[in-house]
Amino acid sequence: MTTQQLVEQIYKKKSFLCIGLDVDLNKIPKHLLKEEDPIFEFNKAIIDATHHLAVGYKPNTAFYEAYGVHGWKSLEKTINYINKKYPEVFTIADAKRGDIGNTSTMYAKAFFEDLSFDSVTVAPYMGKDSVEPFLAFKNKHTILLALTSNQGAFDFQTKDTEGVELYKQVLKVSKSWENSENLMYVVGATKAEYLSDIRKIIPDSFLLVPGVGAQGGSLLDVCKYGLNEQVGLLINSSRGIIYASNEHDYAEAAAKKAFELQQEMQAILK
Amino acid sequence: MTTQQLVEQIYKKKSFLCIGLDVDLNKIPKHLLKEEDPIFEFNKAIIDATHHLAVGYKPNTAFYEAYGVHGWKSLEKTINYINKKYPEVFTIADAKRGDIGNTSTMYAKAFFEDLSFDSVTVAPYMGKDSVEPFLAFKNKHTILLALTSNQGAFDFQTKDTEGVELYKQVLKVSKSWENSENLMYVVGATKAEYLSDIRKIIPDSFLLVPGVGAQGGSLLDVCKYGLNEQVGLLINSSRGIIYASNEHDYAEAAAKKAFELQQEMQAILK
Repeated sequence: MTTQQLVEQIYKKKSFLCIGLDVDLNKIPKHLLKEEDPIFEFNKAIIDATHHLAVGYKPNTAFYEAYGVHGWKSLEKTINYINKKYPEVFTIADAKRGDIGNTSTMYAKAFFEDLSFDSVTVAPYMGKDSVEPFLAFKNKHTILLALTSNQGAFDFQTKDTEGVELYKQVLKVSKSWENSENLMYVVGATKAEYLSDIRKIIPDSFLLVPGVGAQGGSLLDVCKYGLNEQVGLLINSSRGIIYASNEHDYAEAAAKKAFELQQEMQAILK
Repeated sequence: MTTQQLVEQIYKKKSFLCIGLDVDLNKIPKHLLKEEDPIFEFNKAIIDATHHLAVGYKPNTAFYEAYGVHGWKSLEKTINYINKKYPEVFTIADAKRGDIGNTSTMYAKAFFEDLSFDSVTVAPYMGKDSVEPFLAFKNKHTILLALTSNQGAFDFQTKDTEGVELYKQVLKVSKSWENSENLMYVVGATKAEYLSDIRKIIPDSFLLVPGVGAQGGSLLDVCKYGLNEQVGLLINSSRGIIYASNEHDYAEAAAKKAFELQQEMQAILK
């Protein structure tokens, strides 16, 4: 998917919401556990109920890998379902991968080719040659961790690194990498006050913003500092939407939560 | 597995060799491709031929994920085979994971519980609360990226961060994390000259050292600066061993290469 197609979808749906599909068998409605593939059934119902309100879905791979081969199969069925039934939707493999060149190429193949995701999250610690293999894929997007939503972000990311915070080094340096037009960045909603500085370095890039909802980030603050001319934000909510109810009405409850966020976004886009 | 058991195995086998199982279907002998699971058949033959020469095996998860559900199944069969037939061997899931707390817990479950690996490699960028969920597992080892073997290591890892290089910050800060006795560190063999400085910060930790062989690192240099009182090194070679031949004799050829390295290690241990 091109960035232009993503922007068009945002204006059409009046939403820049992304829904995180972090499915934990201990948290989904009990009646689903008797299904052959509870994770996929859960995702399918959530997607069917929210696809008109969200522009993206973001399965976090950890929640699938924890269930081994069965989990990976649920992930494959989920992405195939989205790509077939809702091909306009932007898909994110939240995998936080990154390794030496030939290995990153294998990860890129796993997510861009085998699973046909539009994008994947990547950690920057190993530098240029660990990220460029992802960037080489045309119309695919590499979402680099910059400033994450957790407390541990203050351990290294905000430390002074040759005159600026490490996450700013990551933003600056990565701009010079080959095919850097395929980069997006992760910036946590819990760090909204950092966004005006971030926008000075990367005014045009899309940001994936987790941390609204369960982690306590504010949508209004994020938009105040983070919006750019083509919106430039994908706001993710996972637990706040998908676990709105753990009864039979879970999909409707998720849609209701997604609708509330979409309505806030519609007001902001005006 | 405890560190003590690993050390005992090193002295028994007179080896601190770890073999990387990075299986690329384009590189393995052609005759294996007609097998139902070529990756597992390849691994099985390599493991059977080298288990007396190596103390560890390190499948890199990228090479399995690239083949989707089939690949994940090959990974599961490989680790189950090692754990059943050679339970004394130390196993490393080279996965380079790391995410916010509840997600890292799911990754830890995936590799320590579902797949029963002894250890997993983890990226430090997201800080303490992204690593501690791995450290919470008893007799399991979290191998934190410190200074990697690739060129991109110079993009961020060696940059001055509040007075010392970032990788040294990672070493220092991580020592204060809960259950830090379960930490090991990745230091690339191509950066052997950094090892004496590294040993000043973490004299007692085990280091996983990739980059000997195909990437050009020197075993002697690594040992000169990196050995400690309980050896403290796991030297990994992947492509240099497993692709020694791509004919029917591939397992024997791998064993020959592994034997050469084991002999060098035996001389060093004396």
